[in-house]
Amino acid sequence: MKFRIKTLPLRTERIAVVLSQDDAAELGLLPGDRVKVSYDGKSFVAEVEISQEFISSGEAGVCTFTAETCSLSEECVVEIVPFARPKSVEYIRKKLNGAKYEREEIKDIIGSISSDVLSDIEISAFILANEIVGMQNDEIQWMIEAMVEVGERVVFERGTVVDMHSIGGLPGNRFSLIAVPTVAAAGLLIPKTASRAITTASGTADTMEVLANVNLSVDEIKEITEEVGGVIAWNAPTGIAPADEKIIRVEYQLELSPKPHLMASVLSKKLGSGARFVAIDIPVGKKAKVENVDVGRGFANAMMEIGRNLNLKVATALTDGSQPLGRAIGPALEAREVLEVMERKVEGDLLEKSLGIAGILFEMTGIATNGYQHARKIFESGKTLEKFREIVAAQGGDESVKAEDVAVGDKTYTLHAAKEGYVREIDIAALNEIARTAGAPKDKGAGVYVHKKRGEVVKVGDPLLTIYAEKEWKLDNAIEVANTKQAFEISGVIIERYTMGRWWS
Amino acid sequence: MKFRIKTLPLRTERIAVVLSQDDAAELGLLPGDRVKVSYDGKSFVAEVEISQEFISSGEAGVCTFTAETCSLSEECVVEIVPFARPKSVEYIRKKLNGAKYEREEIKDIIGSISSDVLSDIEISAFILANEIVGMQNDEIQWMIEAMVEVGERVVFERGTVVDMHSIGGLPGNRFSLIAVPTVAAAGLLIPKTASRAITTASGTADTMEVLANVNLSVDEIKEITEEVGGVIAWNAPTGIAPADEKIIRVEYQLELSPKPHLMASVLSKKLGSGARFVAIDIPVGKKAKVENVDVGRGFANAMMEIGRNLNLKVATALTDGSQPLGRAIGPALEAREVLEVMERKVEGDLLEKSLGIAGILFEMTGIATNGYQHARKIFESGKTLEKFREIVAAQGGDESVKAEDVAVGDKTYTLHAAKEGYVREIDIAALNEIARTAGAPKDKGAGVYVHKKRGEVVKVGDPLLTIYAEKEWKLDNAIEVANTKQAFEISGVIIERYTMGRWWS
Repeated sequence: MKFRIKTLPLRTERIAVVLSQDDAAELGLLPGDRVKVSYDGKSFVAEVEISQEFISSGEAGVCTFTAETCSLSEECVVEIVPFARPKSVEYIRKKLNGAKYEREEIKDIIGSISSDVLSDIEISAFILANEIVGMQNDEIQWMIEAMVEVGERVVFERGTVVDMHSIGGLPGNRFSLIAVPTVAAAGLLIPKTASRAITTASGTADTMEVLANVNLSVDEIKEITEEVGGVIAWNAPTGIAPADEKIIRVEYQLELSPKPHLMASVLSKKLGSGARFVAIDIPVGKKAKVENVDVGRGFANAMMEIGRNLNLKVATALTDGSQPLGRAIGPALEAREVLEVMERKVEGDLLEKSLGIAGILFEMTGIATNGYQHARKIFESGKTLEKFREIVAAQGGDESVKAEDVAVGDKTYTLHAAKEGYVREIDIAALNEIARTAGAPKDKGAGVYVHKKRGEVVKVGDPLLTIYAEKEWKLDNAIEVANTKQAFEISGVIIERYTMGRWWS
Repeated sequence: MKFRIKTLPLRTERIAVVLSQDDAAELGLLPGDRVKVSYDGKSFVAEVEISQEFISSGEAGVCTFTAETCSLSEECVVEIVPFARPKSVEYIRKKLNGAKYEREEIKDIIGSISSDVLSDIEISAFILANEIVGMQNDEIQWMIEAMVEVGERVVFERGTVVDMHSIGGLPGNRFSLIAVPTVAAAGLLIPKTASRAITTASGTADTMEVLANVNLSVDEIKEITEEVGGVIAWNAPTGIAPADEKIIRVEYQLELSPKPHLMASVLSKKLGSGARFVAIDIPVGKKAKVENVDVGRGFANAMMEIGRNLNLKVATALTDGSQPLGRAIGPALEAREVLEVMERKVEGDLLEKSLGIAGILFEMTGIATNGYQHARKIFESGKTLEKFREIVAAQGGDESVKAEDVAVGDKTYTLHAAKEGYVREIDIAALNEIARTAGAPKDKGAGVYVHKKRGEVVKVGDPLLTIYAEKEWKLDNAIEVANTKQAFEISGVIIERYTMGRWWS
């Protein structure tokens, strides 16, 4: 049947046509079915949606995304015929029944997701099938290969290219901003791509953006890396492994991130950025993505094996995922803290982890036998800060940037301890929620500063955390969250007290 | 934050508001998150969608469905604040992890689906979790109770109310049109609600609609049933168990129908229509919803147990699901065939099954000890046809309706046998596709007539099937499907031939 194109004032990131109920029935089509749309000797496959209003018989509605992607304009006349569902839907059903994907099948699925032909319902089925049924290492490897293949790639002609990544979920986990310049200062190339926060208060890209531009193309990443040795860029605009973003969007709505997808997400980005050696941070903790050390080891082994088959040398570090790294949570607070560390004003776990991760890469590439010591030497020589400023400048930031220049939210509120003891537990999910409610990551200056970490002694009236916000109403909401959720568990230093009476009873 | 309502020219059957990217970030919202929308002392919870175009900062877009359901109009000013996701999402996640639903949890989920607060992605997760993890009988019972509770109900003050239903999927399975009047002729009340075809060429409601109006309210169903003893109505407009339609819409896109949902779908409708005794038809066959007799028995036992706990007496019949019932497929062809049977012009499996199902209800209610014989007596006395015409008339149809009056498609094509033998297999999926391609169920006169059924002998040139269509182009497409898919498997009558040589070798 012939249809006249009608462009609709809406945008959904999916190739779809909207037909009237009558026309859909005439063609025997139901929502979710596919059609082949042909015009001017071209054709594409689209999902069918059905409208009871707004679309008249003889019209095919398209949103602006479909119109642009398929170069359709108002009043274009197209031929529409029913078409089979994508084969990928069948492969997902096979997995639901417990089967293993073939290499070509997973390639087909990733291709369909990348080119926006799968519906949200179908992507949900993919995620749930992989979560419940699981994936074997070779399936994950094929998924990674497919993800990289359909995207952009950075190709370096010379140099030893390394990279680092965290599987994420830990507040304040900004070691890359220190480890990347340390590694680059030693002559390695490190084209680090990083995420923005989805459910947390800041991602490495959000924090770096406080100091420099992070929206770089693959060409810019290559150029800057070759010029100064390293870069810290947001991964999305690079076009590397584009299926990842689309899968993560649906995972967020399902509140799920299947472990095979976590592995594929990290390794596809690293492979796409041209790295040959990669250090992976796996935070382990009750509320982290990896819940205990046993699971962490299995996860680490799988990633190393998959890496080997992809010609990517992978080392992993199981790290403490039970409390924030450093004390700052939120883009500007974190940016200030990493600068304070590099300016030698503060020490602690953030510095230690940064040197540890850099050290792993030094050992992997044969630069040093004691990588940590080598990293510390570079750091103490001041070369880390110097290199960081070079990177910031190359990404359009201020090359003389200092911690004290970083502006943080001017609306603040400090929570004090009501009893004496030591910090037994910190609830990272609660801290995250407080920081997000205060405005992070959108409001760069918003977040939380943690005064007391686990094991530290607390006296009555000591500050526990300070909330920073840019807007009064967000500060108020964050205070409410902080008062409701107990982010800190304070225990008496004396575990239990026995009276003499009890001893004798 | 305050927002001005903007009504959007689109309709999605879900309570949602569309915010600009900036405003969503300001509130820390991502697609799929929920917000509380307040105005004029009222409030409702909506899903968040984010637009990069068409919605300006300060505007909240709503589709016509949300505008109507929540009585919002253009320029209304509303207050929007972030709100927790529905608890039901958490319960679905529990099931994904292998847990059992609590009664209140499943009630909450069904309530959320019925009131359009769950997204398609969330409904997908519900379906997939139940498919993969499964549901126990008491969970299914609670699901049914919840489905009935949120919908309309038919309440009869007197009389013995019975009902019948097929779990579906079998072409030509129109026994209800004969069994309902047979049962009603014996003085039982039978307020039969039925489906329209989703993936098949006709549903009982589509076929009945050829002869009468099937869009009835619960009040009309009650009135007609009390007046003439029976009714055959489409279930959707009754408002009985409204969650069912919404779940089925997503199941279609997943190409899944979990067995617990099949049971819940059937029993909720029967419970909602006021029945106390129900006969359930379970077609068993390789391409049917129930694949073999063992599975069928488990299915039947589960339904009977669940029925018992719902105070609903359930009897089940495992029937042949490997070939069409009768010979007609498609609304008008089927309507004509059931009339031919009632006019005593044809006999065969359609009549036998109809009398068998009616007989089960006669035995359950104590009307007869040999139900089948009782049904046959009524049928042969002419009371079945007489009652059917009364029902048709009560539903606004022609009370003197005859088989020869039913108009079928005038574009036809007959496929003939190319070889001799007997029919070994009939592919019901292929017949279904041919009939749908010919225009069924939208074009009432379209469909397929099967000349040879399983076991029947075929000579070269014998007609195998005739395709009926209302439109030439649909007939052409259907012929193409018929030529591609082998709907009939014809075998030589001699299974294998041995030469003398082979015997002696």
